[in-house]
Amino acid sequence: MSTVENPAAAAERQQERKEPTFVFTEKQVAEKSELARRFLETRARQNGTVLKSNNFLVKRFYNIDHNTYLDGALSAKTKELMGLVASACLRCDDCIYYHAIQAYRLGAPRAEQEDSLNVALVVGGSIVVPHLRRAYELLEELYG
Amino acid sequence: MSTVENPAAAAERQQERKEPTFVFTEKQVAEKSELARRFLETRARQNGTVLKSNNFLVKRFYNIDHNTYLDGALSAKTKELMGLVASACLRCDDCIYYHAIQAYRLGAPRAEQEDSLNVALVVGGSIVVPHLRRAYELLEELYG
Amino acid sequence: MSTVENPAAAAERQQERKEPTFVFTEKQVAEKSELARRFLETRARQNGTVLKSNNFLVKRFYNIDHNTYLDGALSAKTKELMGLVASACLRCDDCIYYHAIQAYRLGAPRAEQEDSLNVALVVGGSIVVPHLRRAYELLEELYG
Amino acid sequence: MSTVENPAAAAERQQERKEPTFVFTEKQVAEKSELARRFLETRARQNGTVLKSNNFLVKRFYNIDHNTYLDGALSAKTKELMGLVASACLRCDDCIYYHAIQAYRLGAPRAEQEDSLNVALVVGGSIVVPHLRRAYELLEELYG
Amino acid sequence: MSTVENPAAAAERQQERKEPTFVFTEKQVAEKSELARRFLETRARQNGTVLKSNNFLVKRFYNIDHNTYLDGALSAKTKELMGLVASACLRCDDCIYYHAIQAYRLGAPRAEQEDSLNVALVVGGSIVVPHLRRAYELLEELYG
Amino acid sequence: MSTVENPAAAAERQQERKEPTFVFTEKQVAEKSELARRFLETRARQNGTVLKSNNFLVKRFYNIDHNTYLDGALSAKTKELMGLVASACLRCDDCIYYHAIQAYRLGAPRAEQEDSLNVALVVGGSIVVPHLRRAYELLEELYG
Repeated sequence: MSTVENPAAAAERQQERKEPTFVFTEKQVAEKSELARRFLETRARQNGTVLKSNNFLVKRFYNIDHNTYLDGALSAKTKELMGLVASACLRCDDCIYYHAIQAYRLGAPRAEQEDSLNVALVVGGSIVVPHLRRAYELLEELYG
Repeated sequence: MSTVENPAAAAERQQERKEPTFVFTEKQVAEKSELARRFLETRARQNGTVLKSNNFLVKRFYNIDHNTYLDGALSAKTKELMGLVASACLRCDDCIYYHAIQAYRLGAPRAEQEDSLNVALVVGGSIVVPHLRRAYELLEELYG
Repeated sequence: MSTVENPAAAAERQQERKEPTFVFTEKQVAEKSELARRFLETRARQNGTVLKSNNFLVKRFYNIDHNTYLDGALSAKTKELMGLVASACLRCDDCIYYHAIQAYRLGAPRAEQEDSLNVALVVGGSIVVPHLRRAYELLEELYG
Repeated sequence: MSTVENPAAAAERQQERKEPTFVFTEKQVAEKSELARRFLETRARQNGTVLKSNNFLVKRFYNIDHNTYLDGALSAKTKELMGLVASACLRCDDCIYYHAIQAYRLGAPRAEQEDSLNVALVVGGSIVVPHLRRAYELLEELYG
Repeated sequence: MSTVENPAAAAERQQERKEPTFVFTEKQVAEKSELARRFLETRARQNGTVLKSNNFLVKRFYNIDHNTYLDGALSAKTKELMGLVASACLRCDDCIYYHAIQAYRLGAPRAEQEDSLNVALVVGGSIVVPHLRRAYELLEELYG
Repeated sequence: MSTVENPAAAAERQQERKEPTFVFTEKQVAEKSELARRFLETRARQNGTVLKSNNFLVKRFYNIDHNTYLDGALSAKTKELMGLVASACLRCDDCIYYHAIQAYRLGAPRAEQEDSLNVALVVGGSIVVPHLRRAYELLEELYG
């Protein structure tokens, strides 16, 4: 019996992904924060409209998106905070809300959210500030 | 009498532009979709404010913008769908609404709008998704 | 006694910054324009939430941001108009509102605001147009 | 036996994708244009490095990307031209080169490439011009 | 004889544009700075390729672009510096070079160029820094 | 003697920043990777030109930028990887190189760099791919 492993298989294994454990449900988040509740509700309704169209590529994209934030070489929490940085840099309020909520659900303390937003602020500049302001409103409701 | 044509003149001719034929009027679109109606109304009111200022360069820009989407080497419909792709990639909801409505008015079926949005989604990534969701809400009202 | 000056000191001196003199207060702007009033109010409330968190880097960033628009090699007014150009190019409505209001408070006539927006329109393209429309609504209230 | 079809299945069917027929091979393009040859060569070498890492999500993304440009509701050629518009708007020279070459390989005449670039120019503004210049250098070699 | 003027005509008149007076020719700039020389040379060659195609919309866009930076409500110099801010924010090296050279040709001192770049740096964030570095290399050659 | 602490002081303390410990020096990185060596060399030379101008705001910005990536609520390594995500999303090759090198110097394994790049790829879309390719060339030299 050989112990030699195919390098490609090894790499794939090393990147094993698994579903993370959430500390809070979406429902709990919605009860805690009115801003989060409204966002999650609108998002769910609109995703319903998208998914009803049953578009093959959209479904594939949603699937790959889901896989990106699973526990892997980096934890799901770290990657949701990275999603937050990317969203703030690219200045998408809905995306900021989504990733801040996910990071919260995965147990990220407020200081980690702020540290992440600081990276986005310095990389992205003052154009990020209006989004930072709205992000802090959410953080205030989630952690306040 | 020479049949030889100046190459520059030939190129220009080859690019002849003409006004496309719309299948639907803006009014018909507004009657079909509440989202479209509100968008078109706000846009008309705000454009009134802009044009009242009679700014030379704004008027010139609006003119060149109008010329871009006429029937030419590519059909007006194809170019409105390209405008949709560009708008979704650059993540401008108003622009997405505008070009999706124009493509609809020029007879583009829903599947072509979705195919165009897929190009934008794959080129532009998940940051496009919130705009995709809002675009599908409009498509649902226009074609549903 | 030497008259020779250190070149670095000279450069620093040459860039001396000082607070500009405003022609109008924020309160006067808010009384003139309802759009400005609502923007300034929301901004003040949200900044309160941000500053309550007392985040060291955010405070540092706000400080450097403040220093950027002081009178220097270029006047504060010119730099606020540059902030307007940058904001319109990067398509941030809140930033457009902020810099247009600041330029107004520093005495910029409407024609200078329009000239600035034209630079943004030509550099940034038709994707800037929806923001241009909203900017003109504000200009109409401020100067109308 | 029912002739009623599931609406979701119908939608999926309607979106059937198939590999397009290319008029030119990559090799023929490389022989025609030195700019294209160098681009394709660098791209192939770098993709080799990427794929060697055997990263699950990268492979999935490459796969969805490939599927996006197949013949579907819109032809592969139209979607490659849309990719060109998106690339020029987002100002990525490599992406511009890639999609212009693909559109060429699928038989798009030069006038269609120029019409597509015009949409990108008007939507994206003068910031697109340096990329337009480099795109025309390639078009000149491919069609000249 | 009426002294009443049409308001639209008045606005148009108020925006009269005229060609600015340059302090330096492009040739002088090219002799002063090797970086500028290479940029101007490549730009001229590539623009030759673009203009040879005689594309109606490209020519119109180039025309409107030219008109944007004429002396008007704001001076040509101020608007070239605004073009520099926009270019640095949107991170286009060629555009940065172009507008920095134009501002230099119109007599802008180095401190004004740096003040403009500071607005871009603060608005656009650290992602602007690599472009700032390359801009300073040019400034060093032009003013050093 | 009171044990009650001012909340603002508490927040500030919680965000204490300190210099991280690097596993590798820049010199070691430059010896390992030719791509890194050339990047670091050009960057050092250009930063010399920038700093020679002694611009107050640039120095302040560089200072705040340095402070952003210190060990804090999140580790320096995590924040450098976040800087990598932001850089890849915003498509800045120099920034990608810089943060990938910093993360390497702080001991991030290759799998963490790839996981970070995947977040950027999914958020930013295929427009990120050319930058991903160049990032993998660097990773290959650093970790290969």
